[in-house]
Amino acid sequence: MSSFAKLPAPPYYSVIFSSQRSATDAGYGPMADRMVELASAQKGFLGVESARDTDGFGITVSYWESLEAIAAWKADAEHRVAQETGKARWYDHYELRIARVERAYGKRP
Amino acid sequence: MSSFAKLPAPPYYSVIFSSQRSATDAGYGPMADRMVELASAQKGFLGVESARDTDGFGITVSYWESLEAIAAWKADAEHRVAQETGKARWYDHYELRIARVERAYGKRP
Repeated sequence: MSSFAKLPAPPYYSVIFSSQRSATDAGYGPMADRMVELASAQKGFLGVESARDTDGFGITVSYWESLEAIAAWKADAEHRVAQETGKARWYDHYELRIARVERAYGKRP
Repeated sequence: MSSFAKLPAPPYYSVIFSSQRSATDAGYGPMADRMVELASAQKGFLGVESARDTDGFGITVSYWESLEAIAAWKADAEHRVAQETGKARWYDHYELRIARVERAYGKRP
């Protein structure tokens, strides 16, 4: 599976989530996998890309059709539990930015 | 130094650069460092965050005051050489998305 999201032409929306993992691992891996699975099944989900370096700093960008789709995902009950646990336990620091993608290009193999 | 960019309140602009490194290392590290240094000195630069996993997939998000600042950075002569070398040599695949950040929040230590 490619790490790259296959996206339509802009405009669409992105959620840029930067995070520093804490020293607490309990349950993190299964939760992260489950959130990708759950997000992928949401209405309006377009794709997700993620990278984390060996110091535990990571960036995940998810892509969505609309702000409404992002709001619905944020309000998802199982996702809310993960958000609260992440805030309390898995992340020392995170920043979340919601942005409208206006232009896109690349080099594809 | 924190991995997190300290940014003003939105709106501002982001360049989301996702990339898969090639097997070619020659000159990559010094170039990447130099581009961060050079970008940081550009008018309208707000900050940058970056993570790359052990498989060579990475996401770098740079933040800018305006689309004009992004266009000026793209046109910078030294940056153009790096862009061309990156395309030819350092990256197997990349995607670049320009997005307007409309909302931001986080958990800060």
